[in-house]
Amino acid sequence: MSLYSDFFYSKQLEIIFSDENTVQAMLDFESNLAQIQAENGLFDLEFAQIISEKANHQFIDFEKLKSAINQSGNVAIPLVKQLTQLVYNQSIEALKYVHLGATSQDVVDTGLVLQLKKTIDFFEEKLTVLEFKLIEITKRHRLTFMVGRTLLQQAKPITFGLKTALYLEAISRSKSRILSVNNQVLHLQLAGAVGSQNQFINSKIKTDLAQKLSLNVSNSWHTNRDNLAEFASVLGILNGSLAKIAKDIVLLMQTEVAEVFEGAETGKGGSSTMPHKRNPVTSTVILANANRVPNLVATMLLAMPQEHERSAGLWHSEWDVLTEICKLTGGSLEKAIDLMANLEVDSERMLQNIELTKGLIYAENISLTLASKIGKDAAHQMVEKACKTAILEGKHLKEILKNTEIIDLDEHFKPENAIGFSIEIIDSILAKYA
Amino acid sequence: MSLYSDFFYSKQLEIIFSDENTVQAMLDFESNLAQIQAENGLFDLEFAQIISEKANHQFIDFEKLKSAINQSGNVAIPLVKQLTQLVYNQSIEALKYVHLGATSQDVVDTGLVLQLKKTIDFFEEKLTVLEFKLIEITKRHRLTFMVGRTLLQQAKPITFGLKTALYLEAISRSKSRILSVNNQVLHLQLAGAVGSQNQFINSKIKTDLAQKLSLNVSNSWHTNRDNLAEFASVLGILNGSLAKIAKDIVLLMQTEVAEVFEGAETGKGGSSTMPHKRNPVTSTVILANANRVPNLVATMLLAMPQEHERSAGLWHSEWDVLTEICKLTGGSLEKAIDLMANLEVDSERMLQNIELTKGLIYAENISLTLASKIGKDAAHQMVEKACKTAILEGKHLKEILKNTEIIDLDEHFKPENAIGFSIEIIDSILAKYA
Amino acid sequence: MSLYSDFFYSKQLEIIFSDENTVQAMLDFESNLAQIQAENGLFDLEFAQIISEKANHQFIDFEKLKSAINQSGNVAIPLVKQLTQLVYNQSIEALKYVHLGATSQDVVDTGLVLQLKKTIDFFEEKLTVLEFKLIEITKRHRLTFMVGRTLLQQAKPITFGLKTALYLEAISRSKSRILSVNNQVLHLQLAGAVGSQNQFINSKIKTDLAQKLSLNVSNSWHTNRDNLAEFASVLGILNGSLAKIAKDIVLLMQTEVAEVFEGAETGKGGSSTMPHKRNPVTSTVILANANRVPNLVATMLLAMPQEHERSAGLWHSEWDVLTEICKLTGGSLEKAIDLMANLEVDSERMLQNIELTKGLIYAENISLTLASKIGKDAAHQMVEKACKTAILEGKHLKEILKNTEIIDLDEHFKPENAIGFSIEIIDSILAKYA
Amino acid sequence: MSLYSDFFYSKQLEIIFSDENTVQAMLDFESNLAQIQAENGLFDLEFAQIISEKANHQFIDFEKLKSAINQSGNVAIPLVKQLTQLVYNQSIEALKYVHLGATSQDVVDTGLVLQLKKTIDFFEEKLTVLEFKLIEITKRHRLTFMVGRTLLQQAKPITFGLKTALYLEAISRSKSRILSVNNQVLHLQLAGAVGSQNQFINSKIKTDLAQKLSLNVSNSWHTNRDNLAEFASVLGILNGSLAKIAKDIVLLMQTEVAEVFEGAETGKGGSSTMPHKRNPVTSTVILANANRVPNLVATMLLAMPQEHERSAGLWHSEWDVLTEICKLTGGSLEKAIDLMANLEVDSERMLQNIELTKGLIYAENISLTLASKIGKDAAHQMVEKACKTAILEGKHLKEILKNTEIIDLDEHFKPENAIGFSIEIIDSILAKYA
Repeated sequence: MSLYSDFFYSKQLEIIFSDENTVQAMLDFESNLAQIQAENGLFDLEFAQIISEKANHQFIDFEKLKSAINQSGNVAIPLVKQLTQLVYNQSIEALKYVHLGATSQDVVDTGLVLQLKKTIDFFEEKLTVLEFKLIEITKRHRLTFMVGRTLLQQAKPITFGLKTALYLEAISRSKSRILSVNNQVLHLQLAGAVGSQNQFINSKIKTDLAQKLSLNVSNSWHTNRDNLAEFASVLGILNGSLAKIAKDIVLLMQTEVAEVFEGAETGKGGSSTMPHKRNPVTSTVILANANRVPNLVATMLLAMPQEHERSAGLWHSEWDVLTEICKLTGGSLEKAIDLMANLEVDSERMLQNIELTKGLIYAENISLTLASKIGKDAAHQMVEKACKTAILEGKHLKEILKNTEIIDLDEHFKPENAIGFSIEIIDSILAKYA
Repeated sequence: MSLYSDFFYSKQLEIIFSDENTVQAMLDFESNLAQIQAENGLFDLEFAQIISEKANHQFIDFEKLKSAINQSGNVAIPLVKQLTQLVYNQSIEALKYVHLGATSQDVVDTGLVLQLKKTIDFFEEKLTVLEFKLIEITKRHRLTFMVGRTLLQQAKPITFGLKTALYLEAISRSKSRILSVNNQVLHLQLAGAVGSQNQFINSKIKTDLAQKLSLNVSNSWHTNRDNLAEFASVLGILNGSLAKIAKDIVLLMQTEVAEVFEGAETGKGGSSTMPHKRNPVTSTVILANANRVPNLVATMLLAMPQEHERSAGLWHSEWDVLTEICKLTGGSLEKAIDLMANLEVDSERMLQNIELTKGLIYAENISLTLASKIGKDAAHQMVEKACKTAILEGKHLKEILKNTEIIDLDEHFKPENAIGFSIEIIDSILAKYA
Repeated sequence: MSLYSDFFYSKQLEIIFSDENTVQAMLDFESNLAQIQAENGLFDLEFAQIISEKANHQFIDFEKLKSAINQSGNVAIPLVKQLTQLVYNQSIEALKYVHLGATSQDVVDTGLVLQLKKTIDFFEEKLTVLEFKLIEITKRHRLTFMVGRTLLQQAKPITFGLKTALYLEAISRSKSRILSVNNQVLHLQLAGAVGSQNQFINSKIKTDLAQKLSLNVSNSWHTNRDNLAEFASVLGILNGSLAKIAKDIVLLMQTEVAEVFEGAETGKGGSSTMPHKRNPVTSTVILANANRVPNLVATMLLAMPQEHERSAGLWHSEWDVLTEICKLTGGSLEKAIDLMANLEVDSERMLQNIELTKGLIYAENISLTLASKIGKDAAHQMVEKACKTAILEGKHLKEILKNTEIIDLDEHFKPENAIGFSIEIIDSILAKYA
Repeated sequence: MSLYSDFFYSKQLEIIFSDENTVQAMLDFESNLAQIQAENGLFDLEFAQIISEKANHQFIDFEKLKSAINQSGNVAIPLVKQLTQLVYNQSIEALKYVHLGATSQDVVDTGLVLQLKKTIDFFEEKLTVLEFKLIEITKRHRLTFMVGRTLLQQAKPITFGLKTALYLEAISRSKSRILSVNNQVLHLQLAGAVGSQNQFINSKIKTDLAQKLSLNVSNSWHTNRDNLAEFASVLGILNGSLAKIAKDIVLLMQTEVAEVFEGAETGKGGSSTMPHKRNPVTSTVILANANRVPNLVATMLLAMPQEHERSAGLWHSEWDVLTEICKLTGGSLEKAIDLMANLEVDSERMLQNIELTKGLIYAENISLTLASKIGKDAAHQMVEKACKTAILEGKHLKEILKNTEIIDLDEHFKPENAIGFSIEIIDSILAKYA
């Protein structure tokens, strides 16, 4: 949390990853572990009940907890200590069933996974909203002509709907990835000190606890972190796709282009001293996050070669980095929804910009049609010459070609006849969401 | 290719991504495009035949090609130019059907995808070999006792087979990821200048060409690069899992640990002046690659926010980086197979190392058993005291506890009774590969 | 700030970069700017006085400030707004002199630089302490023999002081870098909306303000961020040198090596259930940070190609990343001091470990001496054969060579005769700090 | 070397880092070491002479060398072996003086440093050229008015010379950094197996050899790699500053902006089918490299925590990465020179673009002047209202304000009166290069 946390982060994810909820997730692990162990006859249910009652972050002294980490090296040890003390205050006997058979990393990893479960729900929900907004925009701008640009140069006409339909496909692929990584990453960690389990965390208890927590069962992943790395990557990819949208918006908002604008909440991005400015504030956040998340994903990949049965440093480097990836990507997703929900499109200006090159962007189309009449070479030479003349004389290409009576020139200088299969592509994409 | 290319890279992948094969993959795109267009009646099959004949990298002047890229900005433009000239020399008419309707990025991207298809085959094949080697080792060392280590400290006994069984699971997950990303990344790119296609590359031609090249059909992914980024990530994750294995080997090969060794090809890793040395040469490569690949993956993620319908720079930054990721990860995979195929395990030394702490690594187990007799607290206090005494007096813990007649001490100081469910876990993993 | 902030971060730097101090640094800019402008006759000093009185973070509504950033895109705009309102409440006339001629980025950048000034002081001070600790250790262990290791294999003897003397050199080079980057990075930013300044922030005012804030004068660096990137790099390098130390410590603390230990604060790194463990808690933090900082530095480098006169996103990506680099590196530095101040060295065990290979690590030395007697080839062959025999028969090399009466064998199996110029090197390094 | 190597890399640096020159640099180390050792009386000069004669890459079997690396783990061992064989063929006695006292890493590191020496010369020379080009452009466009842009929105007028003068400052700072890191990185590595030197590489020999090779003397930096990391960072920073220029150019070349163009070599960036296009081919390379180099720098930083006296993997990860950083950054530098040498500036279009907002970009200036007449508030309100009217009615702001007889309106709508101290800043910068 800093001055800028609400700017870059998703507030919802900040809450999911708050200190309180981080600690509560670990306590939920301890509470449910005790319940399952009791249900499996390891001890009386009443002791599990006491543990569950005490496993509440409101009873935890957070200051003490934080300062103890410098001694213990992770939060689980002092947290279990506090929990044990709380239980002990209630029942001397119950204390021996706290954290029974588990190791620190079991608590920390499973706590994280419980938070990731909520995180995945967040992403699924928000991505569905973004898909919806993109469908709406695509439908609305199915026939909104604009110029397609390559290497930041005007190339040929398309429609704005084609652009957004391709965004939509990318976002949907990211949604599929997140839904599919779901099964990979939501694994209970319950493996004991060196991953070999023990009598208190046998196969049956593991299965029961996983079911109780709605997690998958797996063997120790203490130092085989591929699933976690995959989760980070999948968010990194979403982040990139969101940034592709923001990059386009920022470019389209340029004073000289002025085709698309972030929705004007009162005052957003404005400047009292420079009244013509309309700063792309929301896109800016997405682009800033896009410059940060990829290298955080790399840190997760770099953290993979963890030593033996528990790492000295690499595991620790994951903690704040993975949550940062979640919060930043979540922030970009929320901003992207805001962007798409309020986007203003100046279709008039788009048409004007199509005309900026005075017909030159239609040259290829004309050349192709001419080719079928007079042969490719002759067509190419004729059009090339006409283009040069147009540029030199500062005239419209149609003007230069007006005496070429071979083809219906007027039709060839209309955007609707130069957009290839834009409409068909859009419709086939939209059909998938009907 | 450099002094070290065969050291870090997979030779097989170096060949797949050689200049010749890169150019040939692009020519295959052109050749098949012409065939399909002809079959769909756009022009006579004889012209397609001429194009196909000329679409052979042996006819290409590579020096000319390379130096032309500085003008054109990508390899497709001068390559198509050379191809066109070759065709023209044979048939003036055929030349107009070269590269018909396609754009540079269609050629470059599809050419890449054709290479990635072979790359995926390589990974599938090699990963199957690695799985096999890991299954063998796991079976062989199912009962080879060794110490499990956390934070590089001896913790509790496991078996070496448990370690390798967990490697096996991670490697199999990577194999699944690669097989599953297969469908995502192997997409024909055939979208024309701004992604809207045109009459020469309509839906039918696209479908036919994709089928001919055994690729999936999709809309333009010129500037929506998520699938490519996913492919890079998936390799990055494999790379990390391979490095986890190498990290363990390097640590286990330390003079002071000496439990496991890279197979001794004559002279490998040896030193004539330091005869005791046995350098982990093969693992070293994997670890070196593990320090390089993650940030290359990040570069692929950073390359995602590509501008409009074709990027000025980000697309270009993918080219050598993605192939580098493939070649390095492939190199690590080959080295890992070599490592596992030739690994020497000193099970005697493993047993000696278990004894290094003079019984202290059994303390937890004893404490747990005692707890059921005399209560957790009393047990814990007794064992803690005994451990301190053992350390102070430099004696074996069994010696200190010998008068504790509550439990069968001898049994508790045997590794087979301290490995938790190692064997059950191993067997359940092996069962999946039976 | 999170559960782990005090674990990974420097607390001192957390304070320097707290929200309050971040805002105060910006207010200090505004306050001093007004003072200087008044002193230069732009308006009455009384107005500057009012501005200075109100430029106090205690008057700022932080919640309002944070939520306004989503509209404004940076903290300067709503902060100046609040300041203006505060001033307005006091004097309607004074309000027009708030932030006169400056632009948002002037405030944000200069505020940052004022914090970096304190950060540099922190690093200078702490690095001096670390140097001192390293000098002490080096002196103490000038003659503490240990084995030097290459590729994690025992190679030849050195002294522990040689190791730490080389750390010392690296740390001192980092100190020099930080002191030298000082002049590069501590530049007043006062350039106005597009970097061209204006009548209210002319050359004279800039010079005066820089002097007042003890900063250097420069032209606009709004979008030329090399100095900031250099500062980040320099910290990244320090971070790497600290991690080199931690890496060695973690390896030397391994149960099987056991030569060096983190100082034992009560309970640190201990485990009640695994009494033999002594976890490298402090080194672990440094290694975790070492896995995070490099990619944050890369993010700063990636943020350099900022568009035109102010960037849309890249500038914003610097904000939290640069402070993160400072706090993490500062944290590692504090931990390194703690490590060096409390390090326990087991010189007895070091000697034992030298003997682990039964004399083989002396082979090279013996071979070199023999060479001068019987020729290089004969010597090499004799020693090589003896080594093989020693390994095969499990005997000490001295035992095998005992009948070789050519040289004084005893002398050649003493570490003091096998450490090359370790002592001379140490002394020459220490001499620089005398 | 790949299809694209001449596109992304500096050809000059490709040569410096060619296999032949890499091997020769290592042989130069061996040759000069022998010479110095002979001059210091360790053996006869004739033997050194033989070694020097054979230390020629033309005698080396490169295929054999490359394939041997998989056994040896680095190139030095098989290279010394080949050299020894060559010497042995000439003189049985001389062979024992090859590589005397040195270790593999001494050869590899010093060889690298000898190549970096040439690399630094390259950068110094090319940066001087770039400075010169930037000085020329700055002089030429001192008074070329254009609009300054923030967040990609038109803000206020500047001159093109101000932009390039600030580039010039950044490039000069990079030149200073490279000249200054020169002394840090050009250190002879001659430390022996574990960094403690030995009788054959004593202090005197080290000093003499360093002098002979025009390198600095230092103690072992086998595993303290800060200087190398600094060199990588310094290039990374230069790369970023070059990319800032390229980023601006690409944006200014947009069809809708069209103010600046890459020089038109015949056909460069052109498209026969899209005659209006003028692709930013050269800038594209710089931007592509800018997306790659930062993460390679991070890899160098990540490689710093090298184990003990020689690393198993991290050192190896430096080899191809550092040379890649050099070649990519060198490539960008050459491209930037090309860019600046041939840049076409359309000052007419720049003036037109200043008028795009119909006077709104002058609003702030007018407001400031009015403020001194009628007070800040009244001025602000009047101008704000006028701007709104101008936007609504689509009229020029001057038209709206024409009846405001308070100030000389005409003067306020001239760019020369709205560029702040652009000229003064430019002149003060140019003065430094006079």
